[in-house]
Amino acid sequence: QGSPAMYGLIGKMTAKPGQRDSLIAILLEGVSGMPGCLSYIVAQDPKDADAIWITEVWETAASHKASLSLPSVQAAIAKGRPLIAGMDAGTETVVVGGHGLVKS
Amino acid sequence: QGSPAMYGLIGKMTAKPGQRDSLIAILLEGVSGMPGCLSYIVAQDPKDADAIWITEVWETAASHKASLSLPSVQAAIAKGRPLIAGMDAGTETVVVGGHGLVKS
Repeated sequence: QGSPAMYGLIGKMTAKPGQRDSLIAILLEGVSGMPGCLSYIVAQDPKDADAIWITEVWETAASHKASLSLPSVQAAIAKGRPLIAGMDAGTETVVVGGHGLVKS
Repeated sequence: QGSPAMYGLIGKMTAKPGQRDSLIAILLEGVSGMPGCLSYIVAQDPKDADAIWITEVWETAASHKASLSLPSVQAAIAKGRPLIAGMDAGTETVVVGGHGLVKS
């Protein structure tokens, strides 16, 4: 694979009861225009009414880390935090390639 | 969320020892041009030399199911099967939205 490996994250977030839709809306608000973000997908777990799956791909781990200090992301974190019951540690991956990797 | 929910899959595949790179190459060969596929990303697990993470988004569960009988996918399955040591059951999700959802 010619291009340098990309940084991936697969994580499960648990919303407080009844707050999943609101939390997903917040997550999706800031999702476009994050430099280095190649994929950021938010999904519901059909078997757990409070669970959200977030799968991400970034050009580098550094671009992901930098995104956490973007004003839009900071605002989303502040807005979303009261609705979050928990988050798993998440799985970091080394992304080799695929369909749907789009420069922001 | 106006658009109908999409079908997502998060799965972990284990290659036979030393076969991960070959298996990933096979997975990536047939990845473009699958009708209904909005995202198909293949990654290595940095903590397990044999583990592959595959995260997918399809317009519908039906388009995903139909893809399994595409000649290109059948060929990839046949080629890849001898290199596969195991596959977890995978997590099905209901995808709400995000960045990097691209019609094939």
